[in-house]
Amino acid sequence: MSRQLHLNLFIHGRGHHEAGWRHAGATRQALTDLDYFSALAQRAEQGRFDSVFLADALALGDGAAHVATGALEPITTLAALAQTTRHIGLIATASTTYTEPFNLARQFASLDHITRGRAGWNIVTSWVRGAGPNFGHAHQIEHAERYARAHEFLDVVTGLWDSWADDAIVDDAAGGRFLDPARIRPVAHQGRFHSVAGPLNLPRPPQGWPVLVQAGSSPSGRQFAARHAEAVFTAHLDKASAAAFYAELKGAAAALGRAPAQIVILPGLSAAIGATEAQARALLEELNALTDVSVGLERLSNRFGGHDFSHLDLDQPLSVDDFPDPATVQAAQSRAAVITGLVRRERPTLRQLLHELAGARGHFTFAGTPEQVADVIADWFATGAADGFNLMPPVLPAQLDAFVEHVVPLLQRRGLFRTEYTATTLRGHYGLARPANRFFAARDAA
Amino acid sequence: MSRQLHLNLFIHGRGHHEAGWRHAGATRQALTDLDYFSALAQRAEQGRFDSVFLADALALGDGAAHVATGALEPITTLAALAQTTRHIGLIATASTTYTEPFNLARQFASLDHITRGRAGWNIVTSWVRGAGPNFGHAHQIEHAERYARAHEFLDVVTGLWDSWADDAIVDDAAGGRFLDPARIRPVAHQGRFHSVAGPLNLPRPPQGWPVLVQAGSSPSGRQFAARHAEAVFTAHLDKASAAAFYAELKGAAAALGRAPAQIVILPGLSAAIGATEAQARALLEELNALTDVSVGLERLSNRFGGHDFSHLDLDQPLSVDDFPDPATVQAAQSRAAVITGLVRRERPTLRQLLHELAGARGHFTFAGTPEQVADVIADWFATGAADGFNLMPPVLPAQLDAFVEHVVPLLQRRGLFRTEYTATTLRGHYGLARPANRFFAARDAA
Ligand SMILES: Cc1cc2nc3c(=O)[nH]c(=O)nc-3n(C[C@H](O)[C@H](O)[C@H](O)COP(=O)(O)O)c2cc1C
Ligand SMILES: Cc1cc2nc3c(=O)[nH]c(=O)nc-3n(C[C@H](O)[C@H](O)[C@H](O)COP(=O)(O)O)c2cc1C
Repeated sequence: MSRQLHLNLFIHGRGHHEAGWRHAGATRQALTDLDYFSALAQRAEQGRFDSVFLADALALGDGAAHVATGALEPITTLAALAQTTRHIGLIATASTTYTEPFNLARQFASLDHITRGRAGWNIVTSWVRGAGPNFGHAHQIEHAERYARAHEFLDVVTGLWDSWADDAIVDDAAGGRFLDPARIRPVAHQGRFHSVAGPLNLPRPPQGWPVLVQAGSSPSGRQFAARHAEAVFTAHLDKASAAAFYAELKGAAAALGRAPAQIVILPGLSAAIGATEAQARALLEELNALTDVSVGLERLSNRFGGHDFSHLDLDQPLSVDDFPDPATVQAAQSRAAVITGLVRRERPTLRQLLHELAGARGHFTFAGTPEQVADVIADWFATGAADGFNLMPPVLPAQLDAFVEHVVPLLQRRGLFRTEYTATTLRGHYGLARPANRFFAARDAA
Repeated sequence: MSRQLHLNLFIHGRGHHEAGWRHAGATRQALTDLDYFSALAQRAEQGRFDSVFLADALALGDGAAHVATGALEPITTLAALAQTTRHIGLIATASTTYTEPFNLARQFASLDHITRGRAGWNIVTSWVRGAGPNFGHAHQIEHAERYARAHEFLDVVTGLWDSWADDAIVDDAAGGRFLDPARIRPVAHQGRFHSVAGPLNLPRPPQGWPVLVQAGSSPSGRQFAARHAEAVFTAHLDKASAAAFYAELKGAAAALGRAPAQIVILPGLSAAIGATEAQARALLEELNALTDVSVGLERLSNRFGGHDFSHLDLDQPLSVDDFPDPATVQAAQSRAAVITGLVRRERPTLRQLLHELAGARGHFTFAGTPEQVADVIADWFATGAADGFNLMPPVLPAQLDAFVEHVVPLLQRRGLFRTEYTATTLRGHYGLARPANRFFAARDAA
């Protein structure tokens, strides 16, 4: 079988476009209604997607008054979706900066058991500024320290998952032996940020570890991904940028001795799909006309660590001098760099930039027919820009429905995408190996 | 309608008896298999129980090699059960000592939304000694400090739930207004143990707050319960002890201005049910014969903060001088006191004591026919020892099945217990009021 494409559905509010929630194609269900998420996941499963994904922020988002916000917590949501889906992978975001590694290791192990091996963890350091003050810190924790914590945190969590051999449970009711104590051990971690005795208090996850997903794209973020990530979400406004990222990250992983196929790269794609190209474009224009400038300005400001852009003329071309240096930004450095790159290349007006970002917050947006969307996907996939896509429909559920109905069959006909699930775990869907246990070799069959 | 009994199913391993997992009536399913928990919850729902409950310990339990252990994490488990049950309340244990209040407030709010108002939180301070070292502490945090933290923690969490008015979401797609910012506010908590800015990042739970359940019975635990708890789990070896606890706690709540009906007291009941009394007794004896003395000794030791009992003769009568003073115990003080009380009254041998505790770890155990079990329930309920029971079947699922099939119909026939659900939320099942929002008065209908 030829190399296969991967598709992840990024579920976000009532759609990824900032004004998607106002559109007629958006649900009217509450964002606290599990049935809404359940229907989306089931639709993605009908489309044979590898996974669905929920992002997360540890503070009420920016522009909250004017965008659909206030959604359910990802881990609890995905545990519930475990019961309403059968095949699709379920990826929850959780923070290495503001959680306890023992609690997080348990909840993901539990989710992996509950889903019988369909769980993934999107490892984030939490870029939103409001998070720190919700967790006892006067300010946001700095970018470099967040990544230092993330490395140690991951080491603890994977150690806890490995603290049980896969065969630790004997379950010998007649003999009265439930566990083999020799197949469970402490982790005895004493580090700069955490000290954790272990062992974990439940068995190793079915997948060994849930799939490790990552989405940081700054230099520190890429280093982290090259070392640890098995699937990578990434935001690019054009193919050239995605291809450069792809080559660099695969190279960096290979330099660390990793097989390039074991790190699946999934750029974001926000496709506005219409029966004709004109209809697709009209949809995007309709959505842009529904945006609120104040929301766009607040979001842009937060991307640049609170920098104020409101004094700038909305209809004058921007220059990079209007922006702080991305390297000094303590929030999401890579996204800030994507934005200044665009400004340097295209010199949009502030209004144009806000519309561009309204589409999918700095991810690639595209308006076209199902054929045109399939062409873009096939092109990026074939020419070293992507192993698949993180689909970010501008309006939910309407634009997911359009993708599943009209684009997926085209991809299947071209032999790029599965027509049935062939694996039972998320690792299986993505073609990822099950991690060896660092503490316990598998026992030979006796 | 006359005063109604409440029933909670305490799901624990393959049954509450220490050797229950070895019995033919116990499931052979893994404790990581959600279907097992799902079937138990559905069975309890057929029996019209108010709720099911999962306990939790933040370290691998004592005697792990010889008891069925290593179960799923409660919050994720109950989120999954939300989809496989329709009416029954779902109570998860979570710790005020070793979690972040913002994370916990979110997950319970999320669970309450996912279940449409069926969530409860068993608030514990985590008595097991191994927990501290899994969370960066050299030792267990001391009893008094744990309760000081618990009070502050609860204040933060309930504040976060109240940080959104019930009507904060406007959802005006045409007008472009999603939230009313005047109906959301920070909590700005700065305390001894926590500082949390708020607001929470999702809407107030459907129940206002999930039902607050508590199970600490030491003097500090009772104080906490009198002030905050809406349902109370408690362990007593006999009715006199339960009745004294009941009177004291209702009195303490009343002294704080609370209505006694708003604190529902549920002592543990581990009923071994047989077609005849002899059969029921034989079941208990069979289970006791399957216990392992080393497990009982280790558990007893842990109840007394690590005190060593292994030098004592198994078949000599015990004296209270063989035990440390319960007031000095940093683990579960109340349970230690229950045990020394029994020793003082009955002077059992060590082996007899271990068997007594093997039944349900210090809760009331009873062997009898369905009629006899129903009599005990009706008696405790009518004479001021209980508002209902925390049912702890010695063997699961067999002894739950027996209870639902044979005891529930008797209670229904006596008019003590519902034959259909009459409410849709856990508060509704327990007859508890929805808490007012401390920050926002309900708005008058315009
Ligand atoms: C598709 C995608 C999803 C993301 N989801 C989250 C998220 O849910 N929570 C979060 O804090 N950050 C999220 N991020 C941001 C990154 O994880 C990262 O924290 C951020 O980019 C800052 O790191 P950097 O400076 O290395 O880019 C996401 C990024 C991408 C591309
Ligand atoms: C039915 C019941 C269930 C309990 N479940 C838990 C639990 O899941 N986790 C826990 O740490 N403690 C649990 N406890 C213990 C109490 O919450 C409390 O922490 C312990 O009794 C120590 O407090 P005390 O000294 O006030 O009694 C439970 C107690 C009872 C009676």
